Amino acid sequence: MTTPGKADNGSKSMQLTLKRVGIDTYRENVAYLHRDCEIYRAEGFQALAKIEVQARGKRILASLNVVDDTSIVGCQQLGLSEEAFAILGVPDGEAVTVSPAEPARSIPALHRKIAGERLSADDFNRIVKDIASHRYSKIELTAFVVACNQGELDREEVFFLSDAMSKVGRKLDWHEHPVVDKHCIGGIPGNRTSMLVVPIVAAHGMLCPKTSSRAITSPAGTADTMELLATVDMPFELLTEIVHRHRGCLAWGGSSDLSPADDVLISVERPLSIDSPGQMVASILSKKVAAGSSHLLLDIPIGPTAKVRSMPEAQRLRKLFEFVAKRMGITIDVVITDGRQPIGNGIGPALEARDVMQVLQNHADAPMDLRQKSLRLAGRMLEFAPDVRGGDGFGIARDILDSGRALTKMQDIIAAQGKKDFDPNQPPLSALSFEVKAPVAGTVVAIDNVQLARIARSAGAPRAKGSGVDLLAKLGTVVSQGQLLYRVYAAYPTELAFARQACERSIGYIIGPPEALQPLFVEY
Amino acid sequence: MTTPGKADNGSKSMQLTLKRVGIDTYRENVAYLHRDCEIYRAEGFQALAKIEVQARGKRILASLNVVDDTSIVGCQQLGLSEEAFAILGVPDGEAVTVSPAEPARSIPALHRKIAGERLSADDFNRIVKDIASHRYSKIELTAFVVACNQGELDREEVFFLSDAMSKVGRKLDWHEHPVVDKHCIGGIPGNRTSMLVVPIVAAHGMLCPKTSSRAITSPAGTADTMELLATVDMPFELLTEIVHRHRGCLAWGGSSDLSPADDVLISVERPLSIDSPGQMVASILSKKVAAGSSHLLLDIPIGPTAKVRSMPEAQRLRKLFEFVAKRMGITIDVVITDGRQPIGNGIGPALEARDVMQVLQNHADAPMDLRQKSLRLAGRMLEFAPDVRGGDGFGIARDILDSGRALTKMQDIIAAQGKKDFDPNQPPLSALSFEVKAPVAGTVVAIDNVQLARIARSAGAPRAKGSGVDLLAKLGTVVSQGQLLYRVYAAYPTELAFARQACERSIGYIIGPPEALQPLFVEY
Repeated sequence: MTTPGKADNGSKSMQLTLKRVGIDTYRENVAYLHRDCEIYRAEGFQALAKIEVQARGKRILASLNVVDDTSIVGCQQLGLSEEAFAILGVPDGEAVTVSPAEPARSIPALHRKIAGERLSADDFNRIVKDIASHRYSKIELTAFVVACNQGELDREEVFFLSDAMSKVGRKLDWHEHPVVDKHCIGGIPGNRTSMLVVPIVAAHGMLCPKTSSRAITSPAGTADTMELLATVDMPFELLTEIVHRHRGCLAWGGSSDLSPADDVLISVERPLSIDSPGQMVASILSKKVAAGSSHLLLDIPIGPTAKVRSMPEAQRLRKLFEFVAKRMGITIDVVITDGRQPIGNGIGPALEARDVMQVLQNHADAPMDLRQKSLRLAGRMLEFAPDVRGGDGFGIARDILDSGRALTKMQDIIAAQGKKDFDPNQPPLSALSFEVKAPVAGTVVAIDNVQLARIARSAGAPRAKGSGVDLLAKLGTVVSQGQLLYRVYAAYPTELAFARQACERSIGYIIGPPEALQPLFVEY
Repeated sequence: MTTPGKADNGSKSMQLTLKRVGIDTYRENVAYLHRDCEIYRAEGFQALAKIEVQARGKRILASLNVVDDTSIVGCQQLGLSEEAFAILGVPDGEAVTVSPAEPARSIPALHRKIAGERLSADDFNRIVKDIASHRYSKIELTAFVVACNQGELDREEVFFLSDAMSKVGRKLDWHEHPVVDKHCIGGIPGNRTSMLVVPIVAAHGMLCPKTSSRAITSPAGTADTMELLATVDMPFELLTEIVHRHRGCLAWGGSSDLSPADDVLISVERPLSIDSPGQMVASILSKKVAAGSSHLLLDIPIGPTAKVRSMPEAQRLRKLFEFVAKRMGITIDVVITDGRQPIGNGIGPALEARDVMQVLQNHADAPMDLRQKSLRLAGRMLEFAPDVRGGDGFGIARDILDSGRALTKMQDIIAAQGKKDFDPNQPPLSALSFEVKAPVAGTVVAIDNVQLARIARSAGAPRAKGSGVDLLAKLGTVVSQGQLLYRVYAAYPTELAFARQACERSIGYIIGPPEALQPLFVEY
């Protein structure tokens, strides 16, 4: 039967030979066609057009680069950049067919969102499906992210987006109850409580399959940090096996296909430093639901340089999380915490891994604030269990940590995921460094989370794992003039210079009289 | 002197050899570095990072692709994609230096706009400067366009943006007064009045240096259409010489560097079909001011499928144009016109060029609506001249057209710009075609501009110059069942199929009783 409207009808369906082109184009799939290739001319392709490449029943979309040099690709060849070649997963020299990619079907809905309209559940389902299957160009993706950011999705739309995102990936079912998880909205450097909470809670026997993302705009995420201790990027089957055996894991969520749309969205949100309430809720809850969690403890830190800067703002965000979580069938407990300064001493993957391991080892140098916050969060999570009385959680958590059972559990998880060499007392720091000292004597009355994160990122964190900032004075510390405040580590001269530039603009510390100490907004 | 904060301090400044890589990456500058290249490793570059390439005092920014194949680039080479190589303009084998590009300085202002804040004149100046010098990535560019579209710039901001855009390019000074120009906000297929107004007004002796853009979301722009008759892409010096000799021109504005930022912005607006009031005003007025115009006649068509769909909307837009034009020191006259259907018969570059030339030739087949509208607009422009009495313009314009003086002037302009072979009675149409016929007998009571434009674009216009739609019935035409409404031309089977698909969704015509004819919103 001939349907005259079909795109492939009448168009040439020419076979080409696949060639792996030794060019790394990062996350962007690029296809290379010679300008004299018959299909290029017959189809009226343009450079940068999206094309669909098929072989052995597999298909990928790629942007077209036109080649004028037969040593790169010949007229009968289709070249693919390295990652595109790997994703298609077909050997060099295999036959492939090429056709123009049909435009993503959800583009009219995208245009309505750009125009400021409210979208339906169906619209979000279509858009998210197209995004997850890489049908959106960088431009379309950015337009969606910015339009959703600016237009402020209403809470029903946030639910539609979250639900759509949770549906496109794999969904886990642990066949037991409760399945607990914790999450922090971010913005506080060094805040690696998950790496302490998971072993404590799992040691108590609760199921806590923690998947984390890599840093979006911060100098380290839990996945970036955990990666120094163990493999975090593992096949789905191994992940579930580890969780069933050890009651917990600390893995990278992206590799488990739990929310493939989120991974694509982050590739745009990251360079734009975008993190709106709606997108935050959708990103977090879609992954928790896909990961099969029944209970979630959410940490919202408040502080003058935290993501959330006032109690009313925190309450609004809490209510949005509660609304969407309820619609998605997940029990949520929101904790509002002290976000006035970084947690722990290190900022950057290696330095933060050191802090975490020292707390687990009950080491004398272990940062007390990281220990205390982790115990309180773990305590609240333990209270999700029917057999733990309200108020008993903290004490149970402390016993697990002090007894070394948390460390043992962490070592089990590390071994199961694939142990890497890491000595917390000699962390693998970057070779170059400089020190920042107190310009005057006095009390540390404010530390700027944003500026410290900026300095650590300028120094190369999280990409350079040994780079970052090591704090030697925290809020309330009394310092003399010239006393060391922190040390900055970088791997490359350019990055050291960038970090120094950032420090010259502001060191991120305010030294003043003790009465100028910022008040604690929250008691938890 | 060593300034420790400088980015280039301490970083390796290694010389590489330039190599032209035979890959066409369209508007995107791509640089290729081998993974084993010392500078790649020393600088901690990442794939897709922006790098700065310098040679002989020239510099360009490019995105980095990392190469694993020495036959593409060797360890001592820096490869550039074809357009990037041409822009740098330095021979193969020349020494180049490479360094990480500093992030664009206006990024904090961009982030404030994404967050919905109002920007200052300084902010817009910085952003537009960075855009014009290609310091923005595609993601940043899209974020700016969508944020400005959604947040609805206030009228002061529209002035700031327009002013900033007019300042980054070349600015012409014709050393006489008045310098007249016309512009239509677009949305009406076939509306090629400029190609008639310019020769009429220039034949009268008024200075009318018309620069046009290519189509953004339409099936043809004036530059796309004029390109069939003459070269439109010429050096600045030649353009000014032509204008001084012939009192007018019909050139592509992008090639004259009049608003380089606009050209970059269009590369994002086009794929997103974005055309908000603020961006429209900024795009149009920045180019008119840079082109040295003192007087502008602006055409705002209204119709149910035009860009502007009601009189209040047209009046709001008119006032925004008037406000910004006054702040920029340009006299504006806004004409609100009938936008209920396409103007002329052809939609697509070759078909529209045919219509224009037939009107100039006073040919029997020339479309009357295109003739009448052009005469009215030209008449209003002639009245900008101090010596033309109010109301006399139309008669003068008609005399110039009927006498053949407009045709002679057009031929002079075509010859000066560089004549191409074009026979309006045998236009170079695409080889494939199909016909669309009236499904029932009756009167044509509505024609959908948007749907007809979509069909013409699906058929390949404006890229394929001979593709598009040729209308054989207009509003008010009485048709029998099966009578030909229009013919669609396409160059490639895929595009013919796409156009057919579009027609299957809707032919864009409504046939009904004569009393159902859409009322004319405007008398002009």
